[in-house]
Amino acid sequence: MSWRTQRRAEFQHCDAHGIVFFPRYLEMVDSVIEQYFREHVGYDFHKMHVVDHRGVPTALLNIEFHAPSYLEDLLDFDLSVERAGKASVTIRIVISSGDETRVSLTTTRVQADMTTRRSTPWHDHVREKLNAT
Amino acid sequence: MSWRTQRRAEFQHCDAHGIVFFPRYLEMVDSVIEQYFREHVGYDFHKMHVVDHRGVPTALLNIEFHAPSYLEDLLDFDLSVERAGKASVTIRIVISSGDETRVSLTTTRVQADMTTRRSTPWHDHVREKLNAT
Amino acid sequence: MSWRTQRRAEFQHCDAHGIVFFPRYLEMVDSVIEQYFREHVGYDFHKMHVVDHRGVPTALLNIEFHAPSYLEDLLDFDLSVERAGKASVTIRIVISSGDETRVSLTTTRVQADMTTRRSTPWHDHVREKLNAT
Amino acid sequence: MSWRTQRRAEFQHCDAHGIVFFPRYLEMVDSVIEQYFREHVGYDFHKMHVVDHRGVPTALLNIEFHAPSYLEDLLDFDLSVERAGKASVTIRIVISSGDETRVSLTTTRVQADMTTRRSTPWHDHVREKLNAT
Repeated sequence: MSWRTQRRAEFQHCDAHGIVFFPRYLEMVDSVIEQYFREHVGYDFHKMHVVDHRGVPTALLNIEFHAPSYLEDLLDFDLSVERAGKASVTIRIVISSGDETRVSLTTTRVQADMTTRRSTPWHDHVREKLNAT
Repeated sequence: MSWRTQRRAEFQHCDAHGIVFFPRYLEMVDSVIEQYFREHVGYDFHKMHVVDHRGVPTALLNIEFHAPSYLEDLLDFDLSVERAGKASVTIRIVISSGDETRVSLTTTRVQADMTTRRSTPWHDHVREKLNAT
Repeated sequence: MSWRTQRRAEFQHCDAHGIVFFPRYLEMVDSVIEQYFREHVGYDFHKMHVVDHRGVPTALLNIEFHAPSYLEDLLDFDLSVERAGKASVTIRIVISSGDETRVSLTTTRVQADMTTRRSTPWHDHVREKLNAT
Repeated sequence: MSWRTQRRAEFQHCDAHGIVFFPRYLEMVDSVIEQYFREHVGYDFHKMHVVDHRGVPTALLNIEFHAPSYLEDLLDFDLSVERAGKASVTIRIVISSGDETRVSLTTTRVQADMTTRRSTPWHDHVREKLNAT
């Protein structure tokens, strides 16, 4: 199973050669993961960060760039969960446009209590949803 | 008349105090203006920038911050055109959430031929649409 | 009197036409104001934000773009204080490269207690330094 | 051998928990690689991108986050070249503050002719310098 959303390659994402600049993909990825937690997992970032004082900082990121994206391209983000641990999740995202794969990545996020800066287990309903993606 | 769209205040827009950091509003504003040209004016940025080698660089920006925005706030952007000149447009945008005005701004963009770096008149159909906003 | 520093126009600041994109100037401006507080005012942002739980959010910004900046341009930032109030400061910054003025702006920052979100007076030694710029 | 430079963790790099947000590290890394090409390799990005119409887009990035960085931390970037190919370079960067490693990464950049979008061999003097880092 997987979960899918889209983003537009905008002017602000493009570099001097008119293609998406790599740190802008990471901003899009963070936006996509935030939307995934809001819409699919049912644990929005206001609740997580502000009410529960938790965060999901990035521990690992492996990313491969296959083909460039251009201004106004509509990009598909396919998100699947490779593994949901007690307090972590390893997410795979494939970014494509039409039939062409542009970027693929795997990232591990660890849920932490941001007061103690220590990892803290997922709520049960969150882990269930992560496991079902 | 005016044109309206929305953006979400995301984690990547927030500063160390959990409120939207001011340059991130400007990124949202650029995204909103790009969407306005795509959806309302009918002159998308691929056509403008890549096919026609034109741009709409910012000449002036006056912006006032009335109240902070927080993580996950849904923001309304109300865009109206104060004046469409031969090669320029002065846009007013009011950003609000619910009943509260957060940010208001006026900005002048000048359409330029990006090869010569000189201002160049709007296509007629573009100017008509700008005047009707 | 004024205070001066420099920034390089880097690849990440440039848009699809190879010129500095306007929100990137605002990121540079924030970096310059942070350096000004650290080096000239003697009130670094760790002390201000983390120890004192204060911030200096932007209330007003008026900015004018006179000429484009290009990749690798060395930019001068001339900062002067127009007015230091009890809890606010109005700063003028002129960005130039060689003899050419690129951008000029005036911005008002208000010091706030970030717990109460209310304005709070400058420390005396800070206000003295602001007044002397 | 390696080459070293520094960056400051600024307010604009920090997230709602007051620690550096991961895409901001990637912006710093791009700035560091641009400085490395300017100062150590002797092939500045104006010459590369504007005069020679070349780019060094990212093909691969593997990054690990070991410990958070805080507002105003002074960060050391140690850059070494793992392998310089005919048209590519694999760079390793370790980011630390004092004795603590914060981030480590390996990235492969491929030099491309940005008109044809095809890889193109390094100038000899560039490859020599890459090999000597």
